[in-house]
Amino acid sequence: MRRRRPVGKIPIFTLTTDFGLTDSYVAEIKAVLLTHHPASPIVDVTHLIPPQDVLAASFVLERALRIFPAGTIHLAVVDPGVGTERRLLKVDIHHQTVLCPDNGLITWAWRRFQHARARELTWRPTELSHTFHGRDILAPAAARLAAGLRMTSPVLEPILLDIAPTSPRPAEAIVLHIDHFGNATTNAPAEHLSAPKAIRIGRRSVGPLRRTYADVTPGQPLALIGSSGLLEIAVRNGSAARSLKLAVGCRVAIDY
Amino acid sequence: MRRRRPVGKIPIFTLTTDFGLTDSYVAEIKAVLLTHHPASPIVDVTHLIPPQDVLAASFVLERALRIFPAGTIHLAVVDPGVGTERRLLKVDIHHQTVLCPDNGLITWAWRRFQHARARELTWRPTELSHTFHGRDILAPAAARLAAGLRMTSPVLEPILLDIAPTSPRPAEAIVLHIDHFGNATTNAPAEHLSAPKAIRIGRRSVGPLRRTYADVTPGQPLALIGSSGLLEIAVRNGSAARSLKLAVGCRVAIDY
Amino acid sequence: MRRRRPVGKIPIFTLTTDFGLTDSYVAEIKAVLLTHHPASPIVDVTHLIPPQDVLAASFVLERALRIFPAGTIHLAVVDPGVGTERRLLKVDIHHQTVLCPDNGLITWAWRRFQHARARELTWRPTELSHTFHGRDILAPAAARLAAGLRMTSPVLEPILLDIAPTSPRPAEAIVLHIDHFGNATTNAPAEHLSAPKAIRIGRRSVGPLRRTYADVTPGQPLALIGSSGLLEIAVRNGSAARSLKLAVGCRVAIDY
Repeated sequence: MRRRRPVGKIPIFTLTTDFGLTDSYVAEIKAVLLTHHPASPIVDVTHLIPPQDVLAASFVLERALRIFPAGTIHLAVVDPGVGTERRLLKVDIHHQTVLCPDNGLITWAWRRFQHARARELTWRPTELSHTFHGRDILAPAAARLAAGLRMTSPVLEPILLDIAPTSPRPAEAIVLHIDHFGNATTNAPAEHLSAPKAIRIGRRSVGPLRRTYADVTPGQPLALIGSSGLLEIAVRNGSAARSLKLAVGCRVAIDY
Repeated sequence: MRRRRPVGKIPIFTLTTDFGLTDSYVAEIKAVLLTHHPASPIVDVTHLIPPQDVLAASFVLERALRIFPAGTIHLAVVDPGVGTERRLLKVDIHHQTVLCPDNGLITWAWRRFQHARARELTWRPTELSHTFHGRDILAPAAARLAAGLRMTSPVLEPILLDIAPTSPRPAEAIVLHIDHFGNATTNAPAEHLSAPKAIRIGRRSVGPLRRTYADVTPGQPLALIGSSGLLEIAVRNGSAARSLKLAVGCRVAIDY
Repeated sequence: MRRRRPVGKIPIFTLTTDFGLTDSYVAEIKAVLLTHHPASPIVDVTHLIPPQDVLAASFVLERALRIFPAGTIHLAVVDPGVGTERRLLKVDIHHQTVLCPDNGLITWAWRRFQHARARELTWRPTELSHTFHGRDILAPAAARLAAGLRMTSPVLEPILLDIAPTSPRPAEAIVLHIDHFGNATTNAPAEHLSAPKAIRIGRRSVGPLRRTYADVTPGQPLALIGSSGLLEIAVRNGSAARSLKLAVGCRVAIDY
């Protein structure tokens, strides 16, 4: 089943934010989008990015880009610099579009997909709050984009965080993300790992690469290629983050 | 970009509840709406209103009304009196419709928008649980309303909570809402504040009105007009609720 | 208002998972569904099933089936056995379809609805992760089903958990579910309870069956028929789980 569809009249929007789920902020962005595109699906990627955690947002945004169809417009709003002179970006990447602040949020997608192109989003509405640019700039800009309006500005180099996929045959990987189950995903792509003998957390080996969780007994740790194509450390039916004290930034050793 | 759209054939529904996100309750309401309006967007405002906190629901509902397009139908269900003789309301307000219990939930919108009109919602289904009127009365009533059915009953005065916007040039404001980031929004509208010299929490001044978070250094408190047009107390890249021990009901002093 | 609608061209999908709300997993499943059915509503039942709690998922799924219109396709993914040889199911039940692992998840719906029929879902995509069958098998299979594709395989007996509705006039019921408010729902259907004299938690009576929460004073416990047609223990404007120390599996005595 092909994941591409022609850019039709019903664009899909997605939202990735640190807005939480207790306020009306997410709904306010959806109100702006639906006002102009009442038939458009709007998918919540997550609104529980830890406040101002740009790396966490960068990681889940890349996963979304990997699977959404061509033409999807992603709004990603983790924006500690709102109200400052930080730029806003329109990034064309993997046949989709991302609107986000230029604060490193695009990093992980930028590193993983070819042929991305970033431009500054210079459009501004006539009325504008100083604290909620997601609603007042990015959402109406996304609605305009979906309607086919162009917003040209010169191509630029976005600000990037200091994270990148490992080189081929890495001796070490870094934990980039801890998920809801406590699985720890690293920056080592499957295609760079050539049959490692053992994966280690400090001195503790979690064995060679397994195929799936069920290849070890419940409660045992393992290393495998997760559903994003990256080296992942897990505990079957448990939490690797808790059992192995893993957090974002931890190092994982890879022996050949 | 105008936020109004003609009342077409695809009404937008929103939901504001204290149902939480662990049960099927929200989905059950959506099932009723989608059965009759399968192409309608249904937007979650929030389902994490603290159980039975009518004031919290009132605050976020008003924000939603401020931005959704004309014709939107809002269901707001925080209903400690379910099963009692409390009335249900249909409120026409800001070119939209709210269905909610008559328990004060409409208060903040009622105080902030002109020309609102409330009627009792007397329609009842033939089958009815005694514990889930959101699903069994409000949702089918909303579906009927969206289909153009009329449900007339005399205009009435809704029950209102004892909160209101401040008068012009107030000496004091009250915290109405703490958001996900710990920002504290008060009942003082921007247009009532004429260049205050200082905003104080007890004896601690947080300075004059700033334009945006970035006008102070990270970790510093400030006062500004938030994205709902009200005086807000915040801490840049931090939580005002935690740093300044602010909660709903706290007083904020305003010096001129 | 009838809850049936003809199976049209816009199928409704629902999702019940233990994926949480912090990652992109839910959005990835929606991406697959929307790629093929961009106009389809996708309703989140819940994604906060406790990790791998098949009984909890089984309970909320049954409630969803009770109210969604004919033709709805429900994806239920609580799947500790992902990557093992456990089967996947396609269950035709209550004029709707459920896709889920064959691990007991269908139990409560299977016990409560007549004429259900389960088949093994044998279809597999050409590309497949070993850890995310919700996205890689169930979602594309649901999209195919909605497009009218058939996936036949012999009828089978699904794996069922050891829970069932009580017999008529039971002396005892078991707590199956604690909801967001702390209400405890049991396995005793309303139609099996003939005017009990008292409902007891251990030695503590919570009185006879009441009609609604407001039949007792705030803070008082009560027994009533909840919105799913089952015996429920509640505390008016409070939490029965906390006040009465109720949890899933607790016994409730019924005196006649």
